[in-house]
Amino acid sequence: MKKLNIGIIGYGFMGRAHSNAYRKVNHFFDLKYQPILKAVCARNADNAKAFAEKWGYASVETDWRKLIERDDVDLIDICTPNNTHAEIAIAAARAGKMILCEKPLALNAEEAEKMVAAVEKAKVANMVWYNYRRCPAVVLAKQLIDEGKLGRIFHYRAKFLQDWTISPDLPQGGAALWRLDVKAAGSGVTGDLLAHCIDTAMWLNGSIDSVSAMTETFIKERKHQLTGKVEKVGIDDACAFLARFSNGSLATFESTRYARGHKALYTFEINGEHASIFWDLHDLHRLQYFDHRDEGRVRGWRNIHVSDGDQPYMKNWWVPGLQIGYEHSFVHQVADFLAGLADGKPARPDFKDGLATDYATDAVLKSARTGQWEKVKKAK
Amino acid sequence: MKKLNIGIIGYGFMGRAHSNAYRKVNHFFDLKYQPILKAVCARNADNAKAFAEKWGYASVETDWRKLIERDDVDLIDICTPNNTHAEIAIAAARAGKMILCEKPLALNAEEAEKMVAAVEKAKVANMVWYNYRRCPAVVLAKQLIDEGKLGRIFHYRAKFLQDWTISPDLPQGGAALWRLDVKAAGSGVTGDLLAHCIDTAMWLNGSIDSVSAMTETFIKERKHQLTGKVEKVGIDDACAFLARFSNGSLATFESTRYARGHKALYTFEINGEHASIFWDLHDLHRLQYFDHRDEGRVRGWRNIHVSDGDQPYMKNWWVPGLQIGYEHSFVHQVADFLAGLADGKPARPDFKDGLATDYATDAVLKSARTGQWEKVKKAK
Amino acid sequence: MKKLNIGIIGYGFMGRAHSNAYRKVNHFFDLKYQPILKAVCARNADNAKAFAEKWGYASVETDWRKLIERDDVDLIDICTPNNTHAEIAIAAARAGKMILCEKPLALNAEEAEKMVAAVEKAKVANMVWYNYRRCPAVVLAKQLIDEGKLGRIFHYRAKFLQDWTISPDLPQGGAALWRLDVKAAGSGVTGDLLAHCIDTAMWLNGSIDSVSAMTETFIKERKHQLTGKVEKVGIDDACAFLARFSNGSLATFESTRYARGHKALYTFEINGEHASIFWDLHDLHRLQYFDHRDEGRVRGWRNIHVSDGDQPYMKNWWVPGLQIGYEHSFVHQVADFLAGLADGKPARPDFKDGLATDYATDAVLKSARTGQWEKVKKAK
Amino acid sequence: MKKLNIGIIGYGFMGRAHSNAYRKVNHFFDLKYQPILKAVCARNADNAKAFAEKWGYASVETDWRKLIERDDVDLIDICTPNNTHAEIAIAAARAGKMILCEKPLALNAEEAEKMVAAVEKAKVANMVWYNYRRCPAVVLAKQLIDEGKLGRIFHYRAKFLQDWTISPDLPQGGAALWRLDVKAAGSGVTGDLLAHCIDTAMWLNGSIDSVSAMTETFIKERKHQLTGKVEKVGIDDACAFLARFSNGSLATFESTRYARGHKALYTFEINGEHASIFWDLHDLHRLQYFDHRDEGRVRGWRNIHVSDGDQPYMKNWWVPGLQIGYEHSFVHQVADFLAGLADGKPARPDFKDGLATDYATDAVLKSARTGQWEKVKKAK
Repeated sequence: MKKLNIGIIGYGFMGRAHSNAYRKVNHFFDLKYQPILKAVCARNADNAKAFAEKWGYASVETDWRKLIERDDVDLIDICTPNNTHAEIAIAAARAGKMILCEKPLALNAEEAEKMVAAVEKAKVANMVWYNYRRCPAVVLAKQLIDEGKLGRIFHYRAKFLQDWTISPDLPQGGAALWRLDVKAAGSGVTGDLLAHCIDTAMWLNGSIDSVSAMTETFIKERKHQLTGKVEKVGIDDACAFLARFSNGSLATFESTRYARGHKALYTFEINGEHASIFWDLHDLHRLQYFDHRDEGRVRGWRNIHVSDGDQPYMKNWWVPGLQIGYEHSFVHQVADFLAGLADGKPARPDFKDGLATDYATDAVLKSARTGQWEKVKKAK
Repeated sequence: MKKLNIGIIGYGFMGRAHSNAYRKVNHFFDLKYQPILKAVCARNADNAKAFAEKWGYASVETDWRKLIERDDVDLIDICTPNNTHAEIAIAAARAGKMILCEKPLALNAEEAEKMVAAVEKAKVANMVWYNYRRCPAVVLAKQLIDEGKLGRIFHYRAKFLQDWTISPDLPQGGAALWRLDVKAAGSGVTGDLLAHCIDTAMWLNGSIDSVSAMTETFIKERKHQLTGKVEKVGIDDACAFLARFSNGSLATFESTRYARGHKALYTFEINGEHASIFWDLHDLHRLQYFDHRDEGRVRGWRNIHVSDGDQPYMKNWWVPGLQIGYEHSFVHQVADFLAGLADGKPARPDFKDGLATDYATDAVLKSARTGQWEKVKKAK
Repeated sequence: MKKLNIGIIGYGFMGRAHSNAYRKVNHFFDLKYQPILKAVCARNADNAKAFAEKWGYASVETDWRKLIERDDVDLIDICTPNNTHAEIAIAAARAGKMILCEKPLALNAEEAEKMVAAVEKAKVANMVWYNYRRCPAVVLAKQLIDEGKLGRIFHYRAKFLQDWTISPDLPQGGAALWRLDVKAAGSGVTGDLLAHCIDTAMWLNGSIDSVSAMTETFIKERKHQLTGKVEKVGIDDACAFLARFSNGSLATFESTRYARGHKALYTFEINGEHASIFWDLHDLHRLQYFDHRDEGRVRGWRNIHVSDGDQPYMKNWWVPGLQIGYEHSFVHQVADFLAGLADGKPARPDFKDGLATDYATDAVLKSARTGQWEKVKKAK
Repeated sequence: MKKLNIGIIGYGFMGRAHSNAYRKVNHFFDLKYQPILKAVCARNADNAKAFAEKWGYASVETDWRKLIERDDVDLIDICTPNNTHAEIAIAAARAGKMILCEKPLALNAEEAEKMVAAVEKAKVANMVWYNYRRCPAVVLAKQLIDEGKLGRIFHYRAKFLQDWTISPDLPQGGAALWRLDVKAAGSGVTGDLLAHCIDTAMWLNGSIDSVSAMTETFIKERKHQLTGKVEKVGIDDACAFLARFSNGSLATFESTRYARGHKALYTFEINGEHASIFWDLHDLHRLQYFDHRDEGRVRGWRNIHVSDGDQPYMKNWWVPGLQIGYEHSFVHQVADFLAGLADGKPARPDFKDGLATDYATDAVLKSARTGQWEKVKKAK
């Protein structure tokens, strides 16, 4: 088994999710590579040490530039706020490191284009952590679409609804709340949540041609956690857009953090000529499937409990009926990345796929400003 | 169109449900008979008159014996408490009237046997109002079973859960609450609710061989609404039983009026070798169906919205997606009864079927007393 | 009880639904008026006679102008294709008749304005059959919103999904398929289905300020059933739009007849500061309600079975747990109309409300053509 | 952090589930103990080595007696077939080892009593792997009951339905199929699945007084995988029983491996005077809760997504809306066991609790033989 030395930057929520994946992957998947937790990097040395101890990282760095220079690190995992992705990734590529970068790839497509150029020039393995592609039910959806089970696609609709920022007392900025700070996050729900929806959608349904969007910031001012001052909120609290896909299908997308009753309700539905599919992150182990070719009297949405050995990834886990959870999507992503390294067929979404999503989110934000339909640039 | 003159006895909940069915049936079904609301009979003349006016009954009687003697009445519909069914039905049969009798057929099988003898001797059309056989989804279940789609049956389970008698302040007896008075009702949930479950079960899955039951009366004493005195409660508040069907399948049955959160949750599930079925009165327009012959990856319970023209009775109503409700089961029962009259193939459940259910409920109540498995007598 | 003489024009699907409502309403509601089925009008005399016989209409007309002139008719019920509403309604108003008109009120707002002017000038009672306002669960939603239980509203989303026109072999035009013929229908899903969504939405959430829409016709040509020729399809098969309400909330609306697996899936969801609501026509007897004020550990979407006596309209029907269906919404609408006549508080939606919806659908269709956000005109 | 050296016997499904728990627990819980994977024991040395390598066990044994003698092992984890539990556990207790034993504790209560005596004499920490007690939703149910939120309990019902042994071609016995071999398993669904239901039930609702049961073996003969011969099937394929709890509530329990459409459908429902609870293993991250004290109009079953920080165990995992899965119940059980070691409050279910469940399953199997109600012995 080959060792793959991981250097991770950031120890927040995603730092934990990725670390768990690295630690578990070889217990459940037969792979030629084994991730080795070499180093964790964070500005605060104490926090970094505590994290290293908890997860078994062999060392600690407080400057990501030093981490990148280390010879004993093969792969840089970027788990920091969005506004730092480009600089780190470009430097890591130049240093010849593989890169796994949290989503969205960058603050905007302009940055992302440079990141793509950097990894292509350096010829280093690269991937973006759009983890929902690896939920077994979502992969099953992909299989069914690719097999033509749905026929011509008429409609795609996706939502990502949350309700955690409704209180006006919630501050913006700082460690846990950088997603509310436009400087760190670049945008609000568009880059954070709709980026997931768009990545899945383009994977399942092909490229998006054009969009018409609206955004809203419901709470206009919030105290900034670092400065202590009440400041204008720069992010979008909610965003919805209409879209036309290249295959002729129509779509609606919506995301908000103001939908009472929904914690992380990412759903998508695809309506094809012959069949339809629905998925919901709140019950991520299920897929709803309707097949019009079923006999008329007993036609209905099939509620599929995706936990059998013939369903994606599931033979590696438990037995039928026993569900897996959120964290497993990251384990699958690492497993696929490592398998891709071994067999020379790189796993995706890579940086280029991440750029395609950034083109889409840029067009969405532009349309929200102009009030016009905007074309979505295609990644070459 | 032939006229069929109806004389109804009782104007309570069931009086309304039946009257509505008589009034609607010819608007939605093409039939050779038309029910004519000739007379309503009740001891209280004022109430009877008000009911007659509301529903369009042409006349009023206060003595059911007079109603039975009327030449202008073809059919007697018995909507009175259980303890009056036998006497009325036997007299009506002797008078040569067709009889539609509310369920359960009688207080016990002994009475019911006499009623069967009376209608057989008189050769009059007869039916028991086990209306749930006429929910479209239940009929669809019957079709699937009869076509062999389920294969060998292993399991049957039925429940009828309510929660309306939990308060100890609820009195027993009197007009609206005769179901709590053992003298009027004969038993509690067993005759009222389990009788429905048993009727459906034997229709779908054949006869029951033996049962082991338990009953309980949670509130031991209640004020009697007529006497004003606190009296011992004689009915069973809850009853559960195990059963073995003649076809070798195992069953569990349960009913209670002490299941918080359930208003009228009649459910049944049947597990066969190849397929399973589930139905629920709270969403009576749906049938859940699982077919193991579906391809493994996309196998799941199909949630069937029973509202299409190729599903039982539905071509007579609206268009796909538009649901019908509880009252329609009575309309269907009248439609089938009238069609049976016309074509000489009597609709069921007839009194003999009602007797079979009374044999079962008698065995259940006996088992609850003896603590033994008891055989269920078969109707000849 | 006062008699109200009904003259109905058209005997199709809606003719049945309305006739059923007139026949049932006095059995279940205590009212000061009773509808009398005086006459049905249709061009085909045989069909009209058959319908009259089935439903008990006392007479038949083949020319709606004659019907309108009859002194023994108090109310004209318009159940004909959309392109005939204006002419009939304006004439009926001039003749001093009350008018109940099927939705949408007219082919466009221009026509609808004239209809409003006509009924206002004639001071005749008028109503539009947006029946979904009368589903008990929808009325319950209205109550909760009006009581302030949701607080500030952030989001509204509505969909009306069907799948019955996917086959390219389906012809357009003629008796049953006039909804596919742009001349008779005016538009496709926008006027037929989104009009329902918009009517409910403005009732629940106030007026709409502006919209951005897209439409699509997936099957470009169909045989016309009357001419036998393959002709261009003029209607919209699908329409989706973004909207901003006057109260600051954002909305998405979508309708299509190309969503495999959905027969008549009209759903809406409203997200407020404190609570959210979801409703679904496929289970119209249920309301989903989430209240953030519930204790955190046991907070969840409440699945409310709207069948109790303290829920809208339900004390008039059966007992808790026993559901009603689609047709009951029409019974409720007639009941409310008759009650409004009696107490001088006219039931709504009246023609002015219908005009408001036509302003919205006009703006939607215009936006789909221009690719711009369009303002929605407000009814004065 | 103290090290706790684990010696595990068996490397099958449960060997994996436990090993995963030992590996993960310290990443997610702050504990004073850390499990160290010291040795895995299995008769087949190659398989044991492969397992050790996969999971990081430091050594391998092929004789469990040797494992028990090792000074560097603190805790014996028994993951072998049921017929070996007693001998191993008694020997391990005598050797002074802590013991975690897979369920059911023993083949029967007679064996289990000896195991209890052994651990009590040796004063060693002990626990039985009834893991479903540690699903967050189940713990939440326990909290609500203990807080009195349900009031007086009227009903308990539990089912554990599977469908994996319907094929008559499935052999019995051997590595993967020892659960079908009565010699290894002791019984069929009663010891395997109903034992889980009973353990949870007695934890939530107190002791069971008496039971009336039936069992069935649908496929009477199967080929034995080891001998190759067709042999009589000794296990129960299905078992259902009625029960009376000491608190006066009534119960139904059922388990089968012949319920088409159900992979591992463990459900329970509890109906109390004020509130009811429902849980389902197929969506183990959800709890259904009905509270009759909610305002009447908006009363409904609350569908609780148990993923918030104030719900049991969940602050240790991800963020609201992101679900955990089956394996996490084992992590929680290890966490609680280790916390119990540290603070001197032993986690449960301990062997005595396991004995209580064996008393119940013994009574169930006896009742199925005698056809009588049987008393359930109480653990002292």
